[in-house]
Amino acid sequence: MTPQRIAVLGATGSIGGSALDVIAQHPGRYRASVLSAHRNVDALAELCARFRPDLAIISDPALEGALAHKLAALGVDCMVAAGPVALEQAVAGALCDTVLAAVVGAAGLNSTLAAARSGKRLLLANKESAVCAGALLHAALREGGGALLPVDSEHNALFQCLPGGRPDHLATAGVRRLILTASGGPFRGRTRGELGHVTPAQACAHPNWVMGRKISVDSATLMNKGLEVIEACVLFGAQRAQVDVLVHPQSLVHALVEYVDGAVLAELGHPDMRTALAQALAWPERTSSGVPFLDLAARGKLEFEHPDTATFRCLDLAYQALAAGGDAPAILNAANEIAVEAFLAGSLPFLAIADLIEAVLNALPAESVRTVESLIHRDLTARAKARAMLARMCC
Amino acid sequence: MTPQRIAVLGATGSIGGSALDVIAQHPGRYRASVLSAHRNVDALAELCARFRPDLAIISDPALEGALAHKLAALGVDCMVAAGPVALEQAVAGALCDTVLAAVVGAAGLNSTLAAARSGKRLLLANKESAVCAGALLHAALREGGGALLPVDSEHNALFQCLPGGRPDHLATAGVRRLILTASGGPFRGRTRGELGHVTPAQACAHPNWVMGRKISVDSATLMNKGLEVIEACVLFGAQRAQVDVLVHPQSLVHALVEYVDGAVLAELGHPDMRTALAQALAWPERTSSGVPFLDLAARGKLEFEHPDTATFRCLDLAYQALAAGGDAPAILNAANEIAVEAFLAGSLPFLAIADLIEAVLNALPAESVRTVESLIHRDLTARAKARAMLARMCC
Repeated sequence: MTPQRIAVLGATGSIGGSALDVIAQHPGRYRASVLSAHRNVDALAELCARFRPDLAIISDPALEGALAHKLAALGVDCMVAAGPVALEQAVAGALCDTVLAAVVGAAGLNSTLAAARSGKRLLLANKESAVCAGALLHAALREGGGALLPVDSEHNALFQCLPGGRPDHLATAGVRRLILTASGGPFRGRTRGELGHVTPAQACAHPNWVMGRKISVDSATLMNKGLEVIEACVLFGAQRAQVDVLVHPQSLVHALVEYVDGAVLAELGHPDMRTALAQALAWPERTSSGVPFLDLAARGKLEFEHPDTATFRCLDLAYQALAAGGDAPAILNAANEIAVEAFLAGSLPFLAIADLIEAVLNALPAESVRTVESLIHRDLTARAKARAMLARMCC
Repeated sequence: MTPQRIAVLGATGSIGGSALDVIAQHPGRYRASVLSAHRNVDALAELCARFRPDLAIISDPALEGALAHKLAALGVDCMVAAGPVALEQAVAGALCDTVLAAVVGAAGLNSTLAAARSGKRLLLANKESAVCAGALLHAALREGGGALLPVDSEHNALFQCLPGGRPDHLATAGVRRLILTASGGPFRGRTRGELGHVTPAQACAHPNWVMGRKISVDSATLMNKGLEVIEACVLFGAQRAQVDVLVHPQSLVHALVEYVDGAVLAELGHPDMRTALAQALAWPERTSSGVPFLDLAARGKLEFEHPDTATFRCLDLAYQALAAGGDAPAILNAANEIAVEAFLAGSLPFLAIADLIEAVLNALPAESVRTVESLIHRDLTARAKARAMLARMCC
């Protein structure tokens, strides 16, 4: 069989690395034909030396020469391109069959939508595309007619527990609820009184997953789960009342689907992204992933509890943004990014993250999403509003 | 839509009652068109008064008159038949689309095989058909070409966690292991020393499921799980090394499927047979079942441990019977029935149940299964051998 050609967007990141690990395990089945990175020329060039793609893309056009030079020095003979337009052209072009959209943040929006419009198989790890641009993503998928497979471990778990992965109508498929699990983060069980002075280092000490600082803080505030609730509504056509969150400190059950007959299907596994990536790459088949098999008897027990939404207010803010509709989730996301940045910089207390986001949501009533440009404009507006409010809060 | 017409064989039993409960919840969707019972004329007549089937069948031909009389007294106008041949004709005939095979024991074998041969949708709750007559069941299913849906909660859970329910080849579907859970029964954690003098009443006090005495003892010895391992191999085409057992005292996770990529899918729910019956009746759709929804946070935790096979030897005996092949599982089942009967009568110690079964398996080397008649002959031989050995053990 001809290997499936994969464009790995965000190849130097954590998800990209896990995907390349799986791809390397199945050389006859997969080939990394396009690799992209944001600014890390050296890491991208080294990946090109190892995976020999047809095309390497660096987001920052100023670094195209440096990438070409480094590739030549390593003796790698592949095409080089730079900039966002080259990225969009590459995912829509003839060099790949499947696109892994693992670029972080709003920077990944256009390439993700281009992949959806092209009808390629889209492996979605770029949360922002679903959270901020759900309506645009749906329109692009309808236009392209290709399959979307979620790579986020919770949404990948839902995909595995639903008939056909993403059924057209949850009700027709007999689905009553989608349940996302949350580790609860490093502050699970703490009271508001105990969280007044927690530090960024404490917030970033995640108990189960090794993650970046931004997403670690999101995990500590439960905003990560709030964004995932929004993503679940977008990816699976769920109403917000159909999506629940359970705290599950062991992080072994990633999500559950409750059916109208009382059956609940759950996906379990080690917290290792390679399982979701192997599942999404091979679907509807399965391949090995390199992830060790789960020994439930050795783990002993799985615990579940309701989230403390009075202490961790960000989860409810996400539900409020869903209720508001339109671009409220994008406003939420933008305000959260500014708030987390300020917390990490030591200029905003942990509990004030939710306060700032709430204030921005209240200040900017939801508008409907029409184009990527209008969405990006609103994103910038929300960030500016958040920074202005932050300046007032900190003085 | 025309209601699906269901033949409920074993209507007065526990599974039959649960099925009729689900059927009654969906009058536009299902109709109980055939009801059968072994000897309980009064209970069967009352069910007929409630469900108004086209045909009522009593297994014991001597009771046909009594049933007709009782139905007339209740003003129920339905056909009446009696005896095993009438049962086989009914499941293969024009009065039903779906057959729920919930007759207990070897008595259900011929009607189950007749349903499979007829190509009707077969909801299998009669364990013996799979455990003792796996090869015959497969041949009958091939001949009829209909679907088989397991109703046993563990096998129904596996069906829900596997792509397409019963994939042609587990390996092609990416399946590595099927894992059945066991509550561990009332004697979980006990040592052999502590089990020397346990009574039938203690053995029948099952922690989670309300069941008959025979199956309660099977749960206490782990033989129930051993028979289910055999059933899993037959129903899903698994090798015995692919089927594992985990003790899970809460009985909320019924079974798990481990895939080659490290993902594990599990089915959870309250220990209530109506979920499995609603799933099997509606498949590939879903309907409500009357079973309350599971509140995992209220339950708190799910625990898992390896079974203590040194103390509870029956589980290993089932694996040995699988290894021996042929009719060894039928010998195992027959010897177990005699041993449990003797234990319940107070004439065999709990730990000697395994000893007796092992002795019978050793005394009767496996033969291949050719016909129902030869199988029944071997079943009788095994029972006679067990009784003879029992007489020697007790003197």
